[in-house]
Order: sequence, then C-alpha cells, then structure tokens
Amino acid sequence: MASNSNANAHANTKADMKAKFMQVYEHLKAENLSDPAFDYTEDARQWVDKMLDYNVPGGKLNRGLSVIDSYSLLKNGKELSENEVFLGCVLGWCIEWLQSYFLVLDDLMDGSHTRRGQPCWFRLPKVGLIAANDGILLRNHICRILKRHFRTKSYYIDLLDLFNEVEFQTACGQLLDLITTHEGAMDLSKYKMPTYLRIVQYKTAYYSFYLPVACALLMAEENLDNFLDAKNILIQMGTYFQVQDDYLDCFGDPQTIGKIGTDIEDFKCSWLVVQALERANESQIQRLYANYGKADPSCVAKVKDLYRELGIEDVFLEYENTSHKNLISSIESQEESVQLVLKSFLGKIYKRQK
Amino acid sequence: MASNSNANAHANTKADMKAKFMQVYEHLKAENLSDPAFDYTEDARQWVDKMLDYNVPGGKLNRGLSVIDSYSLLKNGKELSENEVFLGCVLGWCIEWLQSYFLVLDDLMDGSHTRRGQPCWFRLPKVGLIAANDGILLRNHICRILKRHFRTKSYYIDLLDLFNEVEFQTACGQLLDLITTHEGAMDLSKYKMPTYLRIVQYKTAYYSFYLPVACALLMAEENLDNFLDAKNILIQMGTYFQVQDDYLDCFGDPQTIGKIGTDIEDFKCSWLVVQALERANESQIQRLYANYGKADPSCVAKVKDLYRELGIEDVFLEYENTSHKNLISSIESQEESVQLVLKSFLGKIYKRQK
Repeated sequence: MASNSNANAHANTKADMKAKFMQVYEHLKAENLSDPAFDYTEDARQWVDKMLDYNVPGGKLNRGLSVIDSYSLLKNGKELSENEVFLGCVLGWCIEWLQSYFLVLDDLMDGSHTRRGQPCWFRLPKVGLIAANDGILLRNHICRILKRHFRTKSYYIDLLDLFNEVEFQTACGQLLDLITTHEGAMDLSKYKMPTYLRIVQYKTAYYSFYLPVACALLMAEENLDNFLDAKNILIQMGTYFQVQDDYLDCFGDPQTIGKIGTDIEDFKCSWLVVQALERANESQIQRLYANYGKADPSCVAKVKDLYRELGIEDVFLEYENTSHKNLISSIESQEESVQLVLKSFLGKIYKRQK
Repeated sequence: MASNSNANAHANTKADMKAKFMQVYEHLKAENLSDPAFDYTEDARQWVDKMLDYNVPGGKLNRGLSVIDSYSLLKNGKELSENEVFLGCVLGWCIEWLQSYFLVLDDLMDGSHTRRGQPCWFRLPKVGLIAANDGILLRNHICRILKRHFRTKSYYIDLLDLFNEVEFQTACGQLLDLITTHEGAMDLSKYKMPTYLRIVQYKTAYYSFYLPVACALLMAEENLDNFLDAKNILIQMGTYFQVQDDYLDCFGDPQTIGKIGTDIEDFKCSWLVVQALERANESQIQRLYANYGKADPSCVAKVKDLYRELGIEDVFLEYENTSHKNLISSIESQEESVQLVLKSFLGKIYKRQK
C-alpha cells in the first residue's frame, strides 16, 4: 500500500510538473508573439503561433523537463521556490526550442517525411522552404527568452556562451554527418566507428545530454569548468542514446517511436551498418553494397535480413549492457548530488523502446 | 597639386584599410578552422574553408568597413591604435558574416540563381540543401569570433544582445517578406506602401545601417540607449538604400550590380510595383496583374514598359532627392561626431549605381 501510494504521489508530481511545464510554454509563446523588438502584423503573428505549436511542444520533452529535475537533485531535493521552478522550465523550453530548430532544418535537408507522428513542417504546402527561416526564428527566440528572463542574473553571459557553443558543436556534427553520408553514398567503406562516434558526439550528445545539466548547474551558480568529468560522462551517455536511436530506427515499432525509420534508405552512417561492415565477409559486403541506400522496400528488407544474419541485434544488446555497466562505474566516482543527476538521466534511457 | 596628393593619400588609406581588412579575414578564418570546440576532420575543414571563401568576402564590404570608419569618426579622427583597428575590423567581419548567413539562406528560399556575379552557393552541385546548415555555421562563427576577441570587454554582453536582437529583427523581416510575397502572388493589391516599409525596416535597415554604427558606439564604450535618434535616422537611411536596391534590380546594369534582377519574375513586393499600383488606372492595373510574377521575358518587358509609362523612374529621382534632403536635416540636429558618422554613411549611398 505504502509503495503504491508513493508511486501515485510520484506520478502526480510528474504529471503536475508536465502540466506546469506546458503552462510555461504558453507563457513564453505569448511573450514571443508580443515581442516589442518586432512590430507583428496579424498574419505574421498567426504564422509564428502555428509554427511554434506545430514544432516546439510535440516531442517527448525529456530534454526540457530534465533541467528542472537536475536542478532539484543538485539542490538535494530541497523544495524549490515558484520562481526557481519557473526559471528551470524556461531553460528547459530553450532546449526544446533549440531541438525544434535543429529538427525543422534537418528534416528539410534530409528530405524526411514524418516527425513525431505528423508530416514534417516543410512538407506542409504553405511552408516549403520558408521552413529555413522558421528554423532561424526558433533559434532567435531562444536569445529573446534568455534576455527576457535572465538578463539580470550573474550567469547570463555563461548561459549565452553555453547555448552558443553547444549550437556550434551541433551544427558541426550535422556538417560531418552530411559530408560523411555524401561520401558513404559513393563508398560505403568510409563508414567506420571513429567517424560514427565523432558525428554522434557533436550532433546529438552535447545538446541532448550535456546542455540540460549545464543549464541546471548554471542556475545553481556553479562554475562549469569544475564539472568536466560529468560532461564527459554525459557525452558517453549521449552516444549510447544515439546508438539506441539507430537500433530503434531499424528494429523499433514505428507506432511507438512516432516515425518511420529511413536510415537504410537514406544511406545513413548508422551504428548498425558500421557494425555490419566490421563483421561481414566478402559476399555479405557485396550484398550490403548492392542494397544499402536504396528506396526499394525489397532492398531495405535484404539489409535487415543481413543485420539479423550477422547477429547485430545481439551485438546491440551486448553493447547496451557493457555501456550501462561502464557508465554506472564512471558515475559512482562523482560527488553525490552529481551522481543523482547522472543516474536519473541514465535511468530514463536505459533499455528504452522509444 | 596639394588636393591631388591629398586625394592620393586618401585613396591609399582606403586601399590600405581594405588590405588590412582582408588580412583580418584570413586571421579570423584560420581561427575558426582550428576552433578547439570542434574536432575538425580534414574533409570538414576543407568544406568550411571553401564555404567561407565563397560566401563571406566577395561583396562590396561596405557594411564591414563602415565599423572602423564610424569608430574613427566617433574618436574625432584621433589616430587609432593597432588593436583598435583590429577589433573594429573583427566587428566589421562579424557583420559581413551575418550578411553572408542571410544571403546563403535567402538565395535558397528564393530559388535565386546568381549572387555577386557567381552562382548562388546552394546551386553548386555538391552543396544543395546543405547550404541551410552552412548558413547556420556562418551564424555560429559570429558568436565564436565575438567570444574569442571580446569576452573580457565590459561591453561583451551588449554586443551579444545587439547581434541577437538585430538578427531576430532581420529574420522577422524575412518572414514578413515571405508571407507578403505568398499573398501578393494571389492578390497583387496586398502590396501597399506601409507593408513595404515594414519589410524593409526589419529585413534590411537594422543590420545594414544600424548594426555597424551600434558596433562602433559599443567599442567607444557608449550606451546605445543614448542614441535612439541616430538609430531612427539610420533606419530611414536603410529604407532609402533598399528603395535604390529595388530600382537597380529593375533599371540597373547587371554587370555593375553583380546579379541579374528577378524581382518582377519573383513577384516581389518591390518599391516599384507598389508605386505603380498607386498610380495605375484600371487598364494598367489589368496589365500589371497579367504580367507580374511571370518568368516569361516578354511579361517582364511589359512590366518594365508599364513602369516607364507611369514615369516611375522620375518618381524614384524625386524620392531620392526628397529623402536626401530630409536625412540631411535630421542629421544636422545630432551632435557633431554622430553627424560625421551619419553623413559618411549617406555619402556612400547617395545616387549609387551598385
């Protein structure tokens, strides 16, 4: 009974926090739509309103919600003031805004079809290439939000520098990914593990894993230079997360993950193909070359058959267990409040199905 | 003789400054290509190197050079230290980087063909939609440059806020332009002067005219809030500049301006079409509706004929004279060093042919 009611209390808190988080979204959106730095026309306001609702709040919100979770753990579970909760949510939304900016532009560049269970924004007939400017607007909103709510804080410069550096690293990761895919499309043997790991570190890990924790640390008035070990652990965790993503793209349930994976069709430098290339014999490599990166569903099926033949699913399970063990042992060398933050992150992604 | 040697001295100084400015470009590029925040591969470094050379330094560089000009005038012509010249050039390049970021993305969104006398970046076969990410990289370089060279300055936060606000305003102007063109393509009567002026103010005037002067003011450790009149005058000047741009797009020499104007083909909300709509009778309006926004060269020619029939060229000359007079009288109410800055700007654009 006790543990049941605890579980309920926990669920309530979690649901409450999500509701609170959504309220803050509405608040930030309203502020952006009446920003005095721009004299909105009614048409422009409607466009941005719709664009925000379509792109910003529809994801899992894990990155955004983790700022306030992390901050709370850094404060040793001490009850937070209303203002602290609000500011933690604001920073969380800045990360969600950043993510939606990347996704809008990535989908455009990759020619993707669906995202979060709906057509990609640029696929809407009225939008098209205007999506590039919408991406920029999303990015600009972050600075407007940070200025509005953090301009007087001692850590305002550090926040701006943090968002700028992480955005730069993500864009560099995206460049690597685009260049590598371009070369891989001509010669699959370019897809090697070090290349893969570098793309993932820059394109995903910094903004998805390091950024939320760094935001929480800044809010707690910590100096980020004192947390370089934690940063490295978070980058490792981000890598593990992306490997899962690649696995789910191929073997996950499209209903559950909210999109139809197209890594094979798109010639992606995925963890699966890198592993397959390391393990395939001459004739299997020929089959991979003949079928990878083709839109034809029978080619995609042949690649998946090959993955199964090479036991890539087991390789993944093995990787998942080893990564988890290594992460836990690294985390346990950290000071207690940081341990809690890192374990909470790891708990959210270990063996995830979506 | 004396005036001749003065003129030569001036020309030398100007050429020297341009050479110095180009040296600083090479310096900033090298720093960006070895930024410790990203572990460049050789391929990625080559890509960014080529992308920068293709897009950043090939314009008239007026915006960039005007930072150091303005700063020098604010300092009453006192000889500047080598470090001041360097920092003024760095801020100038940040504006050129910002401009190239907007142009790379605008060309992509507008489906343009040429820019500065060469194919648009996204038109290169290897580039395509990767141009969207290159635009983002250009934007991110600005923050990296500012951090590297201004992090310890008292006005660092103000610089970041300034670039962020101006970028936001430009993106909003671009949104207005895209929305307006979309609506105008269905109903030309949407193109009215207040709409036109609002687009121009946000899309062009802030970053082209206000930003260079604001950078110089910050370097001179001035508070931007004390220069709101100068800001308004610069916005007026930016508007006048864009009207010239629209005029040159239609009536300028493509060889001189470095691009083939396509405002008529692209259904642009240009100053010329707004003026024509205000002056046309019923049958002329019909001709405009029938021929505006069509790629067919004979339609374009008919629109140009109509402009001539309505005397739009004279309307432009009249506008140019009135604007110039009004600007001069506004400028003369300013304090002396600011007057010099503003007059120098105006001198550079009055009756320009490119």
